[in-house]
Amino acid sequence: MTQELFNNSVQLIEKVRQERPIVHQITNYVTVNDCANVTLAVGGAPVMADEKDEVREIVSLASALVLNIGTLNRRTIESMLFAAERANERGIPVILDPVGAGASLLRTESVKTLLAKVRVDVIRGNFSEIHALSGDGAGAKGVDVSDADKAIGVKEIARVGRNLALSHRCAVAITGKIDCVVDETRLVCVENGHPLMSSITGTGCMCSALVGTFCAVSRDPFLGALAGVLCMGIAGEVAHERAGAKGNGSYRMALLDAVSLMDEEILLSKGRCYEPHN
Amino acid sequence: MTQELFNNSVQLIEKVRQERPIVHQITNYVTVNDCANVTLAVGGAPVMADEKDEVREIVSLASALVLNIGTLNRRTIESMLFAAERANERGIPVILDPVGAGASLLRTESVKTLLAKVRVDVIRGNFSEIHALSGDGAGAKGVDVSDADKAIGVKEIARVGRNLALSHRCAVAITGKIDCVVDETRLVCVENGHPLMSSITGTGCMCSALVGTFCAVSRDPFLGALAGVLCMGIAGEVAHERAGAKGNGSYRMALLDAVSLMDEEILLSKGRCYEPHN
Amino acid sequence: MTQELFNNSVQLIEKVRQERPIVHQITNYVTVNDCANVTLAVGGAPVMADEKDEVREIVSLASALVLNIGTLNRRTIESMLFAAERANERGIPVILDPVGAGASLLRTESVKTLLAKVRVDVIRGNFSEIHALSGDGAGAKGVDVSDADKAIGVKEIARVGRNLALSHRCAVAITGKIDCVVDETRLVCVENGHPLMSSITGTGCMCSALVGTFCAVSRDPFLGALAGVLCMGIAGEVAHERAGAKGNGSYRMALLDAVSLMDEEILLSKGRCYEPHN
Repeated sequence: MTQELFNNSVQLIEKVRQERPIVHQITNYVTVNDCANVTLAVGGAPVMADEKDEVREIVSLASALVLNIGTLNRRTIESMLFAAERANERGIPVILDPVGAGASLLRTESVKTLLAKVRVDVIRGNFSEIHALSGDGAGAKGVDVSDADKAIGVKEIARVGRNLALSHRCAVAITGKIDCVVDETRLVCVENGHPLMSSITGTGCMCSALVGTFCAVSRDPFLGALAGVLCMGIAGEVAHERAGAKGNGSYRMALLDAVSLMDEEILLSKGRCYEPHN
Repeated sequence: MTQELFNNSVQLIEKVRQERPIVHQITNYVTVNDCANVTLAVGGAPVMADEKDEVREIVSLASALVLNIGTLNRRTIESMLFAAERANERGIPVILDPVGAGASLLRTESVKTLLAKVRVDVIRGNFSEIHALSGDGAGAKGVDVSDADKAIGVKEIARVGRNLALSHRCAVAITGKIDCVVDETRLVCVENGHPLMSSITGTGCMCSALVGTFCAVSRDPFLGALAGVLCMGIAGEVAHERAGAKGNGSYRMALLDAVSLMDEEILLSKGRCYEPHN
Repeated sequence: MTQELFNNSVQLIEKVRQERPIVHQITNYVTVNDCANVTLAVGGAPVMADEKDEVREIVSLASALVLNIGTLNRRTIESMLFAAERANERGIPVILDPVGAGASLLRTESVKTLLAKVRVDVIRGNFSEIHALSGDGAGAKGVDVSDADKAIGVKEIARVGRNLALSHRCAVAITGKIDCVVDETRLVCVENGHPLMSSITGTGCMCSALVGTFCAVSRDPFLGALAGVLCMGIAGEVAHERAGAKGNGSYRMALLDAVSLMDEEILLSKGRCYEPHN
């Protein structure tokens, strides 16, 4: 089962490069350039547009919509809702990155409102963010994982992810030391990635952009989420091999290099997926 | 004629480096850092400011104004209009990058309103964007050139550019596989550049920033537009020679390297300009 | 005295790496990615959030607040004020980067309003910006130092900085060819840095982000300011050694590399501090 999901997810990269799907992203101004570049590097066509008056039209051109609340404000929250409504009408996948959920009431409430009003296909966040949304989460430490949350084991991560997946009938991708991709019935853990990924900004946001791009060419959001998580984690490893000792600037560049040079063969040979035993 | 225009345009780079002109840019948050860096790399001094209450003052310090609608919103559209009115009063060149014109009514209408209310000296866009503004354009595919538009030949590109140039009495630079710089009476095609340029975000926006910087030191917007198009295309080639195989991150870095190391000699030796035969 | 201040400031880098302080930054969209990355590179945890409704909560999680007016607007000016009020309540340091003060009334007045309403611990700017705030400044040339201001000697720089420090009972860091860090009683000049730093965007903003990160782990804002100025200047030198001839893209990458590889030993061996004689 895990092997089949793995195989099916990594095949999506060739489909992305053939179809070059348009991925509409309403995201934050910190990492927006990285998100656009990683989308292009994997083979998609990013469009960033966040004004209420045009987002319905832009969504109408796109094959997926990524919502990232990293630097949300009243104006863009409204645009996200408008855009997601249109995405739902069109039946294209919606990916939500709840950056910093739990760190402020505005973030937590905005995400909950979105989840109540529109259908979301994938939620991609770190454990603290997913925990905050699942209802029993402790306070987040900024946009990073809280120390309490760091001690959590993979079973607890999977349990919290599953609960959120059941509540919203969506896939949930929790990224961290070990990544978990979960939906109502399926669970795959991924042990790729490198600690250096958290030493630069944007790796979480870029992962969500990749998830959106893979979902744009798949009918199964779980596979899109898994492909995005694998692609980002493996790129993080390749970048470390190439540039890890040179410093953060070199590592950041090598990460984008790695995504642009990624293919099905690299994903197959380096991917480490498993289903945790009960 | 073409040779003379070419020679005169490439001379502008030394003038930029001597005068270090201030280039005020109201642009998008996706590529704004790239635009600032490319302006500095070629020798200009970028100033990004977009609040209505200050743009008239900032324009008053500048030698050129670049307007880029990549992530336009109601607030910044108004600021662009205010800034352009002040630029017209002062007689400094205004460069317009109609990112995604045709992709939403807001974009198309905002550009048309600008063009109706203020004088613009150069419009720099891809063929789909210029096509959308010329009145007979088909729908754009996001912010990229539509498939239908990709099949268009250089004569048709030049015709559409000329029509827009005649309508607004300005220069028009259409960038793509072949670039066309056209105004009411002149036409030069440029065959520089590299396909990798479209694999990273911002090369179009950076080209407009360069056009703005060159126009800041020239009384002839056509020459400024030509210099910007040449400089960007040649930088794309040099970057490919240096870093093309290493991936998108390396290519992106090499592009900024190439602009900063550009000089009149490189432009002269690598520039490929011609006037298409009728 | 200077030696002791130097020794105490460079020790802060190990403290940053142990404590990993959260640094809340309300900054501009041109260099925000660089600011986040440099904060991470030195060992801090950046959080960018600028919506009025959440800034009080985000400040409540942070150990320092950095305000940068590079692309200020009515919405973010208000958020800066709210955030600073909360920072004052909590007693965490507030660092102000008055980008372009003097270039528009909006900038100058917004900074003056902030300084009148809240306590600021460090003001970090170039000479023209600090000059504009000290009351007797000439007009700024965009966001760069005006030609008139470039001719100013270190004693005059120190005098203007001291005046501003006395007016607001804060530390003032003036960066340029020679940097001056000054408060009501102390003055240290720093002769690190490299001219290439002004050939890329963001080195000033990044310096302010570093100052904020160091201040987050020090009870003495003067030491935090000195550490930030030293770290940025030395990184500029190291980046030049590594990548100076390769062009601006390489230099930009090498700068982030250098900050991430910085440690107390490098700071001690390369730092050039002195107190100017009267």
